[in-house]
Amino acid sequence: MVKITLAVVALVALVYPSSVAALWPLPRSLQTGSQALTLSSSFSIDTAFTAPSDLQDAISRTLEYINQDKHKRLVVGRGSADASKLKDAPSLNKLNLHLGSKDALSIAQEAIKPLESRDESYTLIVPASGNATLCANSTLGLFRGLTTFSQLWYSFEDAVYTIEAPIAITDKPAYPYRGFMLDTARNFFPVTDIKRTLDAMSWVKINTFHWHVVDSQSFPLQVADFPELSEKGAYSPAQVYTPEDVKDIIAYAGERGIDVLIEVDTPGHTAIISESHSDFVACAGAAPWADFANEPPAGQLRLASPSVISFTQSLFSSLADQFPSSYVSTGGDEINLNCYAKDADTQAQLRKNGQNIEQALSTFVLEVHSTLKDKGKTPVVWEEMVIDHPVGVSNDTIVMVWISSANVRAVVDKGYRVVHAPSDYFYLDCGAGEWLGNDIAGNSWCDPFKTWQKAYSFDPLANLTAAQAPLVLGGQHLLWTEQSDSSNLDSIVWPRAAASAEVFWTGASQPNGKPRDVDEALPRLHDIRFRFVQRGVKAIALQPLWCALRPGVCDLQA
Amino acid sequence: MVKITLAVVALVALVYPSSVAALWPLPRSLQTGSQALTLSSSFSIDTAFTAPSDLQDAISRTLEYINQDKHKRLVVGRGSADASKLKDAPSLNKLNLHLGSKDALSIAQEAIKPLESRDESYTLIVPASGNATLCANSTLGLFRGLTTFSQLWYSFEDAVYTIEAPIAITDKPAYPYRGFMLDTARNFFPVTDIKRTLDAMSWVKINTFHWHVVDSQSFPLQVADFPELSEKGAYSPAQVYTPEDVKDIIAYAGERGIDVLIEVDTPGHTAIISESHSDFVACAGAAPWADFANEPPAGQLRLASPSVISFTQSLFSSLADQFPSSYVSTGGDEINLNCYAKDADTQAQLRKNGQNIEQALSTFVLEVHSTLKDKGKTPVVWEEMVIDHPVGVSNDTIVMVWISSANVRAVVDKGYRVVHAPSDYFYLDCGAGEWLGNDIAGNSWCDPFKTWQKAYSFDPLANLTAAQAPLVLGGQHLLWTEQSDSSNLDSIVWPRAAASAEVFWTGASQPNGKPRDVDEALPRLHDIRFRFVQRGVKAIALQPLWCALRPGVCDLQA
Repeated sequence: MVKITLAVVALVALVYPSSVAALWPLPRSLQTGSQALTLSSSFSIDTAFTAPSDLQDAISRTLEYINQDKHKRLVVGRGSADASKLKDAPSLNKLNLHLGSKDALSIAQEAIKPLESRDESYTLIVPASGNATLCANSTLGLFRGLTTFSQLWYSFEDAVYTIEAPIAITDKPAYPYRGFMLDTARNFFPVTDIKRTLDAMSWVKINTFHWHVVDSQSFPLQVADFPELSEKGAYSPAQVYTPEDVKDIIAYAGERGIDVLIEVDTPGHTAIISESHSDFVACAGAAPWADFANEPPAGQLRLASPSVISFTQSLFSSLADQFPSSYVSTGGDEINLNCYAKDADTQAQLRKNGQNIEQALSTFVLEVHSTLKDKGKTPVVWEEMVIDHPVGVSNDTIVMVWISSANVRAVVDKGYRVVHAPSDYFYLDCGAGEWLGNDIAGNSWCDPFKTWQKAYSFDPLANLTAAQAPLVLGGQHLLWTEQSDSSNLDSIVWPRAAASAEVFWTGASQPNGKPRDVDEALPRLHDIRFRFVQRGVKAIALQPLWCALRPGVCDLQA
Repeated sequence: MVKITLAVVALVALVYPSSVAALWPLPRSLQTGSQALTLSSSFSIDTAFTAPSDLQDAISRTLEYINQDKHKRLVVGRGSADASKLKDAPSLNKLNLHLGSKDALSIAQEAIKPLESRDESYTLIVPASGNATLCANSTLGLFRGLTTFSQLWYSFEDAVYTIEAPIAITDKPAYPYRGFMLDTARNFFPVTDIKRTLDAMSWVKINTFHWHVVDSQSFPLQVADFPELSEKGAYSPAQVYTPEDVKDIIAYAGERGIDVLIEVDTPGHTAIISESHSDFVACAGAAPWADFANEPPAGQLRLASPSVISFTQSLFSSLADQFPSSYVSTGGDEINLNCYAKDADTQAQLRKNGQNIEQALSTFVLEVHSTLKDKGKTPVVWEEMVIDHPVGVSNDTIVMVWISSANVRAVVDKGYRVVHAPSDYFYLDCGAGEWLGNDIAGNSWCDPFKTWQKAYSFDPLANLTAAQAPLVLGGQHLLWTEQSDSSNLDSIVWPRAAASAEVFWTGASQPNGKPRDVDEALPRLHDIRFRFVQRGVKAIALQPLWCALRPGVCDLQA
């Protein structure tokens, strides 16, 4: 039941044909025919080379998905009109994988290479008859191609088929970084949730799991050298990530072409460290919280203290050893200067150092970054570290812009590489209402809800010059979890997070040269959403099924 | 990561004590002590009378919940501070149930009585030592008392306990109607989803399942006399409610003290009937849809046609036989007059009848209501049937107000009884973004998200005179399912729908005489939410767990 007032209503509905090759994200180059082709019951995927075990596993999963998706075409009749074409259609017996390099590194090894040297490209040919071929320069590229291959097929009765053979795809990502960020500190997520999310991410070729693992509310990460952090800071002894859990998550991600970017947010968002190191934290639990932090509980590392700097360096050194990624995030958002101004300890230390707070912040950040660089890591920070504070982080630092997409230009103007993480497009928590207890008329700070359409309309190069374009590494959806946990993880993330996955894989244009377009995209997004559900990820319905079966009919008509 | 600007910030956080008796909804009268009491390992619930089988089942479920909730107190330490009190605490061996009437009707029989004769009252005494007693005039009252009893207990290690003994509760609902509405037409929900939802409803003493079973998008209900409606109108042969399913749902609901109020929305929202009876429906699928309906597809019953009236009467007659409730809803919202103005068939029929469209609407509705009354049913309608159209429905008709809570007074002024179902407080779908495909900047029509706090602040008697108060039967949360299906049912409904359950059970005041208050309520809502999750209903987290353990600390400070 809805009340809608339309200013302008045209007389004719534009009905878009459903794309049969319901791929998500769209490949960069795609040619399709109009012949039916079924998968042979003895269909196999073969490699001419010795495949590393994670590629072998990926092949097995691909076959499982193809057999178990049982996805009927999203058209009226659900594919019954295809039945006659399938009777005498040729069948595909084999997909042959070819690797264009002599060394078959594992997918996991390829997935953690620096962004500029990661090769995710592939070519996939599904002929009208004969065997199919998938070629890539890396096992990572082959994995991306397998992901695409698994999305080509529909089911009708016993047949697994396409009606768009022959199919030729040449593909590689428009941007090297395509991520998803999860906050596991406001509320805890079991490893099974994270693994399921990694699976889903891989289905839409997201390649980075940005793990905002700890925050002021809890410290679930067990750090070998600092066991007290999680002993005192986890919500419970059961709500922790053990070293084995971390290893498991990194391995699971790697096998799915996903790099794990760990973040320990500093110096803000660290109240929970006061539970184990009360002397390290300024204004811990200070009231009223809003004077000292953007959300309760207040508490920030005493950044001017040499022992705190040393602790933080050791912490990141430990993380650098634990996480094989080329990147580590030191955070750096929402530093509350009033907290430091009111902290006698910090003020005494500043006087002793002969520094003001900004100078001390710079020292703190650069010392920590120096530790990471010594370990071969490239630091990642939130935008405040280059926009709001004169920290002077080195130009190889990667900057995540979150407050507003309008701030990207300022970061790029300073020569930094950016990852788009704007709250105005990609924050999944917006629109879920106020989580502060007594705010009856309140709503989410970043209202309204960020729809998939809004995310899909994002232009990664807006306001930038052509010369600045290479500084854009990519982007990501993000889930802050004040109001989320296991109960709604899938439904708040999917399929929306698939929108940025396509924005940053496919780039500005469809393979036919036209700009990306929500009307073209929606039928494909319905398709991938149904595959998600079939594979056990509770992605939400975007429309009534009636609309999903009738592309374009449930449009706002202009 | 949030940006919050606070206009006024006070210096001291108001910290509310966590209510140990974490009951939801709050009883009307509640006295608690401060002594520890554990449940004996041989604890049993006994009846001195011959309990009907659904009460026996309810007793079994109560024992299961008590054993399996394993709910630790939501305080820092999770109840570890209680351990010393539990060592020598007396233990409770027995809860004795007493029925104050000679005839032990089943819960299901009591649950479908007319609202004015339904008795849900009970008295529950849990002494500091000795046996506990639950008394009621009906098995339905006993069931409500069992529900309350199951919420009294926390777990710590092996103990199941309260630290608030003795406990004395005298309870009955402030309003007789406390509902939840589910739309199973925009997207389909399997019977298991509906049963799980009925369980959850019963945990917070909701007593009416308002089943908006069909709509313009699909007709999943198999109607014995009109099998073609679902054969042609269901999304698929699997996505139907068979007569056995309906029987199963009614029985499952009844055993849980829930009446099933079936709605077949007429004469609007009926486009799908055109699939089986194309001659019965005006402007079926007409484009642009916005000229003919509030959402696609357009289509309304040709209400002036004698054969349509006859069909609709037969349909409701069949429903009246199938559903034992005293109430049936004929809908009546969002009638699009342009659809009828442009329909040559309707215009010809009006001329033949010598009626204008409003007169024909009146005839249509009154004829259908007459059929229902002949079957002993009281009709229920949406507000348009008394506010927007001069239909002249009889004064015993129950009116649901949905467009705005501001419209309640107009309905009551005409002498009708109302059920509060206002979109501005109780619509669960608001805030989830635009579901129309191509509306990039759009958002939900009833933005913003309706928080639990907003729902909880609802005043059922606002703008009414004291004399009008008895016309308010109660109210409900509602889920329209353009963007919902199995994937997010639990998370979009719970725990928000528990807010209206308490508004209409507990009424304006807490047992201590103070007005209901979100700060007092939140710790209890966290509690019941954790029980929901433990019992398999994926209710969402309302706050970081850090906040849930520290009542009042995550408040917006005034």
